[in-house]
Amino acid sequence: MTRPIAHDPSSQERAAEPGSGMAADIADQPEAYARLIAEADQIAEVAAAVAARQPRHVVLTARGSSDHAALYGAYLTEIRIGLPAGLGSPSATTLYGGRADYAGALVIGVSQSGQSPDLCELVTAARASGAVTLAITNEPGSPLAGAAELVLGLSAGHERALPATKTYTTELLALLMVLEGVRAGDGRLGADERAFLDTLPDRAADLLADDTAVQLADRYRFAGSLVVTGRGYAYPTAREAAHKIMETSYVPALAYSGADLLHGPLAVTNPRAPVIAVVGAGPGGEFMRDVVARLDERQAEVTVVGPAEVPGAHARLPVPAVDERFAPLLDILPLQRLTLALALTRGENPDAPPGITKVTPTR
Amino acid sequence: MTRPIAHDPSSQERAAEPGSGMAADIADQPEAYARLIAEADQIAEVAAAVAARQPRHVVLTARGSSDHAALYGAYLTEIRIGLPAGLGSPSATTLYGGRADYAGALVIGVSQSGQSPDLCELVTAARASGAVTLAITNEPGSPLAGAAELVLGLSAGHERALPATKTYTTELLALLMVLEGVRAGDGRLGADERAFLDTLPDRAADLLADDTAVQLADRYRFAGSLVVTGRGYAYPTAREAAHKIMETSYVPALAYSGADLLHGPLAVTNPRAPVIAVVGAGPGGEFMRDVVARLDERQAEVTVVGPAEVPGAHARLPVPAVDERFAPLLDILPLQRLTLALALTRGENPDAPPGITKVTPTR
Repeated sequence: MTRPIAHDPSSQERAAEPGSGMAADIADQPEAYARLIAEADQIAEVAAAVAARQPRHVVLTARGSSDHAALYGAYLTEIRIGLPAGLGSPSATTLYGGRADYAGALVIGVSQSGQSPDLCELVTAARASGAVTLAITNEPGSPLAGAAELVLGLSAGHERALPATKTYTTELLALLMVLEGVRAGDGRLGADERAFLDTLPDRAADLLADDTAVQLADRYRFAGSLVVTGRGYAYPTAREAAHKIMETSYVPALAYSGADLLHGPLAVTNPRAPVIAVVGAGPGGEFMRDVVARLDERQAEVTVVGPAEVPGAHARLPVPAVDERFAPLLDILPLQRLTLALALTRGENPDAPPGITKVTPTR
Repeated sequence: MTRPIAHDPSSQERAAEPGSGMAADIADQPEAYARLIAEADQIAEVAAAVAARQPRHVVLTARGSSDHAALYGAYLTEIRIGLPAGLGSPSATTLYGGRADYAGALVIGVSQSGQSPDLCELVTAARASGAVTLAITNEPGSPLAGAAELVLGLSAGHERALPATKTYTTELLALLMVLEGVRAGDGRLGADERAFLDTLPDRAADLLADDTAVQLADRYRFAGSLVVTGRGYAYPTAREAAHKIMETSYVPALAYSGADLLHGPLAVTNPRAPVIAVVGAGPGGEFMRDVVARLDERQAEVTVVGPAEVPGAHARLPVPAVDERFAPLLDILPLQRLTLALALTRGENPDAPPGITKVTPTR
């Protein structure tokens, strides 16, 4: 399901400039969304094949950024399909020889590269014990794709920088399309989903044209640590943003669900550590408004990612007002731009952070 | 299953001294272990009742420190029982009205206070849809206990300080005893488990008598951030230690699975941020030895919690060499002492951190 991406003749020269690869990956996202949306029929076939097997619960397994996409998939599964969902621990299988019985489960492995041996091993074991298995990967020729019964390619094209951006967002989109298709039973998307997808590439392009996030990066230049928070569908966005900031700017960035933040870690917030709060136009956002008020009481400086002003917040990265279920596909975009600008202002090259590699094989 | 704890006449006076409550809670743990072990017959009855219902998968749900105990329960379930396990997101039910079908599942709510409305709501919804439900709580008269079909009390007695210590470790023990009982089918523990439990209170007491952790706290006094890491069974220990340090010393403490650390966040490690690595005597520890070597290459200063020397580590908190499945009940003890000593050396009162309350109701 991947197709070749036209070679960009200037990519070699631009690669010399720090952050140019990540900037290009970020800018690609509206087109990457459009490419995957154009594959709706093939995705519907995969969804219908899953639905026909009537799974009783869903296990998602992933590492790094893909783990945050998998978490989004877990929320979609529980809320939209009405099946329990959890994130599987590969180490139970790969380290301790656990042989869990996955009969009746849908097991989804999510990985940009499809290379990680631990995910392959979990998917292989699950398939052998009777699970429906699905690989979501940018490399449909990868070992993970080979291990799974069903495969969904991301069609994101080559990702230039080490930190995942367009492969993360297309993972979100692939999960949305396939899980909504499973919900429908015949794999077809409903009117609400189709209406959203019709506008997604343009909305993503408009959002990426807004430079508010770049100004914010300058304000965070000297921050010694950061906190990112969101609840429900917005929690994966908070985790992904914190992860991305850490792997490019090396500033400790703590991610919390808004509910968990009230169970202790609120104590770590203070006037010296900026907070980014994802506050959507729905029930998760309603809850987060109280969290922002509590943070304001603690004199934390809160920047909101959201479609509306929030009392107690000091700044806002504006995003479109969409159903919270769709918001993760848009809300992460200004946070990617913030990540890139922050790394550059701190003198780092986010295209190639030291100490990490694009493909990380773990067992 | 709780019993009254003898009143300590000096507790009022000691309460005035910062950290005295947490110190007393920590010191209680060998006795709290012994009390719960003495209830093995009642726990076996609960385990047998669960096993008779033949659950197909397990969902655990919790907040804060209890969430780390729940994660330990998920590893035990996958490795020892051979059933898929995941952590449920209460917000799917409480915020978005998701009505997941939990038929065939065992749903375990873990909460010191048993008060959090979101956990109660998830357990109630799961029970209504046909799940076996179990509450593990220090308050058997709490709403969570009322919502679940089966209840396991922790018998930990009153916890004086806000940060959970003895309720966390008794949650681990309750999960170990009940899940091993489910594995056996008749609820009875095997010879290995009985042998370990026979020695647990004494080993815990010996470990708490070792002051190495207090010396380490002095070394970390000026740290601007910390990283805690472990893999497999040791990952919950890493998360709990990081959480505890943050809520008492307000220093950003990042917790990673050793595998996830290699997928990006390794870049955040450097000579300025101390790392605590839990390196057990088993497959998780073997994996972590490579992680410690990678951290040493990055000039991070690594302290190991483990039974043996690890090349590349700079210091060690010694713990007994036990099966990794049992190690979380011991490994956290020196880390609790480290947490307490670090908070005190930084001038904080860990008994009552600002901004948090013992019972945190979230929906």
